[in-house]
Amino acid sequence: METDTNVTVRERIAVPAREGRGVRIGKGQSFRIVDLEGSQVGDLFAFNADDVREYHSAHHTRAVVDRLFPLPGEQFQSNLRRPIMTFVADDSPGVHDMLIAPCDPARFEQLGVDGWHASCQENLQTVMADFGFPDVVVPQSINLFMNIPVRPDGGIDWLPAPTKAGDSVTMRVEMDCYIVLSACPQDIIVINDKAPSPMAIDVLD
Amino acid sequence: METDTNVTVRERIAVPAREGRGVRIGKGQSFRIVDLEGSQVGDLFAFNADDVREYHSAHHTRAVVDRLFPLPGEQFQSNLRRPIMTFVADDSPGVHDMLIAPCDPARFEQLGVDGWHASCQENLQTVMADFGFPDVVVPQSINLFMNIPVRPDGGIDWLPAPTKAGDSVTMRVEMDCYIVLSACPQDIIVINDKAPSPMAIDVLD
Repeated sequence: METDTNVTVRERIAVPAREGRGVRIGKGQSFRIVDLEGSQVGDLFAFNADDVREYHSAHHTRAVVDRLFPLPGEQFQSNLRRPIMTFVADDSPGVHDMLIAPCDPARFEQLGVDGWHASCQENLQTVMADFGFPDVVVPQSINLFMNIPVRPDGGIDWLPAPTKAGDSVTMRVEMDCYIVLSACPQDIIVINDKAPSPMAIDVLD
Repeated sequence: METDTNVTVRERIAVPAREGRGVRIGKGQSFRIVDLEGSQVGDLFAFNADDVREYHSAHHTRAVVDRLFPLPGEQFQSNLRRPIMTFVADDSPGVHDMLIAPCDPARFEQLGVDGWHASCQENLQTVMADFGFPDVVVPQSINLFMNIPVRPDGGIDWLPAPTKAGDSVTMRVEMDCYIVLSACPQDIIVINDKAPSPMAIDVLD
């Protein structure tokens, strides 16, 4: 595990509860996603900054790492089967998901919410529109800290994120990327312990 | 299980080994995918015929059925969280996958193949281009009969398809759809027992 003593934070990007933020970072640079208060899922997306039609793709990553979620030292793959991020360190319980779609307006409507509700898909679309890309494909998110155990019969459960305040993961991008993080606004089911809270993107030196 | 005695085949679309074929079928109509010789994976895709930006989405399906792959009686979901197909019957060993990306030219290059090799992604793109859509998003495929067991530690294995000649699945579309099937050309790893073989799409009455 990488510890704070080895890391210098160049810039901290605050991600308010229920919102999304993004940053363009250069090939070889690392960043850290921090769950500031605990039990909070972060939906992470990565797009090639030179051509956003290339992006992180969960089903291509699984085909390379031969597991449902990479381990530290392994690489996330793009939809063009190129390494897009390396999983540098996991300073968390190590529970993450890449099976479940990011929440969106239809999801909350189906959960019985009346009217607008913030969602990870809208957060992604807002951030990418601000970067000049109003019409990106919405990929399967990297659902950091999301607790979706798979049972032996293939069934899945939805449990609260097991993180404590300050838990984090560290990634390095393998091409120039737009990185987007949505602090998941889900407050109807238990994945964020029904209390969405803020997160941070630390761009590291 | 639905049996042949209850089924009338309106049209059989032959899918040669290593190739793809498609058909436009109307809401409420059923079709059957047949593994004609056994041990053959079929990559199935479904697009809304009225707007191909809506298509079957594995991560939205998992979020509704709460399992890695639907059971007969359950529904596949679109990326707009609408039912797009119902899984009517499974006359096969019941082993299918929605975790692994369809094979593509980069996959075969990485497996050491020199020069062109047929792939499920190219088969999909060829069929959809013939329908007038040369630039569709390539979704996670529904990998019928593909044997990708998930171990308790989250690791996945790649095993030969356990089907025998004549095994099939039956689906009903819940909106007008373009259905595309690629008889997977993978012959480097063992998923098709290293012998790609033909399949069929039976459009049912």
